[in-house]
Amino acid sequence: MRVITTIHEMQNEIKTQKSLSKSVGFVPTMGFLHEGHLTLLKKARLENDIVVLSIFVNPLQFGPAEDFSTYPRDFNRDKSLAECEGVDFLFYPSVEEMYHHSSSVRVVVQERTDVLCGKSRPGHFDGVATVLTKLFNIVLPTKAYFGIKDAQQVAVVEGLITDFNFPIELIAVDIVREEDGLAKSSRNVNLLPEERRQAAVIYKSLIAAKAAIEGGERDPQVIKSLVSAMITSGFKGQIDYVEVYSYPQLKDLAKLDGTCIIAAAVKFSKVRLIDNIILEVSQEIGGAK
Amino acid sequence: MRVITTIHEMQNEIKTQKSLSKSVGFVPTMGFLHEGHLTLLKKARLENDIVVLSIFVNPLQFGPAEDFSTYPRDFNRDKSLAECEGVDFLFYPSVEEMYHHSSSVRVVVQERTDVLCGKSRPGHFDGVATVLTKLFNIVLPTKAYFGIKDAQQVAVVEGLITDFNFPIELIAVDIVREEDGLAKSSRNVNLLPEERRQAAVIYKSLIAAKAAIEGGERDPQVIKSLVSAMITSGFKGQIDYVEVYSYPQLKDLAKLDGTCIIAAAVKFSKVRLIDNIILEVSQEIGGAK
Repeated sequence: MRVITTIHEMQNEIKTQKSLSKSVGFVPTMGFLHEGHLTLLKKARLENDIVVLSIFVNPLQFGPAEDFSTYPRDFNRDKSLAECEGVDFLFYPSVEEMYHHSSSVRVVVQERTDVLCGKSRPGHFDGVATVLTKLFNIVLPTKAYFGIKDAQQVAVVEGLITDFNFPIELIAVDIVREEDGLAKSSRNVNLLPEERRQAAVIYKSLIAAKAAIEGGERDPQVIKSLVSAMITSGFKGQIDYVEVYSYPQLKDLAKLDGTCIIAAAVKFSKVRLIDNIILEVSQEIGGAK
Repeated sequence: MRVITTIHEMQNEIKTQKSLSKSVGFVPTMGFLHEGHLTLLKKARLENDIVVLSIFVNPLQFGPAEDFSTYPRDFNRDKSLAECEGVDFLFYPSVEEMYHHSSSVRVVVQERTDVLCGKSRPGHFDGVATVLTKLFNIVLPTKAYFGIKDAQQVAVVEGLITDFNFPIELIAVDIVREEDGLAKSSRNVNLLPEERRQAAVIYKSLIAAKAAIEGGERDPQVIKSLVSAMITSGFKGQIDYVEVYSYPQLKDLAKLDGTCIIAAAVKFSKVRLIDNIILEVSQEIGGAK
């Protein structure tokens, strides 16, 4: 594995690989790798000739009240993990390298951002889309890998790739779950033992919603009430949101139809967890799959 | 020459060409080709294996009071000219094809726009940068060609390519001039005969400014006064602006230093003409080249 810190060197290397007709799988991250990232890397390794991992804590996507300077970093650990996963190139530029002078252009995301977690993070997805535009142009991936756990980020990236016509296939990778269904997250260790047991109800409520849709329910309000009721009966955690939208457009629906997302965020004593399921809903009863 | 109207087909064709390691020269236009465009095509033809011309009247770059619907179009004539210049692919998408649904992302140009012609066209360069981001991703050019006559557009494109790390070489092509120095333009035919004779003074004033700089003058105000005085003494046309900036940053300068642009816009009875020269100014006297 080669660690590359300059844009120029990364672009030269990719040019060489492309001239050899190699496919390039790309996993962009902010480092401090966890099991979710490793799942993306394993999939990228299976599906491409070359795997590029980027580690860049992107200041543009942090709000003024957010923790850019204290965001966790552990490059040596990340490097070892990347090596174990068979990464070919670890792109690790400095902030200075990526934004060496004031930038004359930026990407503005004008849809899909004012819902779910984005509602409380104005400008966050502009920063994400801007850095991804740069990274896509530097790495020229054939396929780019993102975890569907952050379904809103995947929706924004889908819009970025489609609407700017990047010749990139977006691979949204399924949520990895514990045996009881809880979505894996490095934050789960911050749950108290009792909360850990209760937290499984989040996914169970999403599965119950899916069953209701399969049974013919098409009213988003009913689905939201069902999920909220199940979560609050299971424990004393505080619901941040339970939402139902079209996917990836993230638009309100009068009636479930087509690809839909049911997403929940729940606050525990020391940690906030998110989860979601995405379903194809047909107009016929029993049409969810 | 093949005319291609869909993004999908254009991307597939480029993929094939790239797999054969062909270099791609790209000339993006809004059609109604004139001699300036043909100069770009000739240069692209000389320097690349494959030449792509795009013709797309981009609604995003027209303001509400501007003439999108009446912008001149003559596809059959353009097609013949493109064929004569040895274009390989003429990319000619519809507005529907380029903006098939409301776009979730756009590019905002946050520098270089509030001066020169951009001052009176808010949002114009956002539209230019957005459509070029799409076109660059569709055509994946090795080199992209723009006329330096629209020096502000070239400055914006330079920022777009540099700051978003597009792996594209920007080729700014020199202004083609009439024998008396007047910059060639399809608008020159709208000059009255007397105005046509007078119009040569615009370039003569820029050359005089260059001579003054070579003689040691470094004060932008003095240069602007010199150009304005020469233009207004030569005829009764109305100066729209005479400006001196750093290039391509288009920032005000306390003192000429480094790459600088001297740009002028002049209104005649039926037409407004622009012209510019770009110079390398060193701190030593006689350092302009």
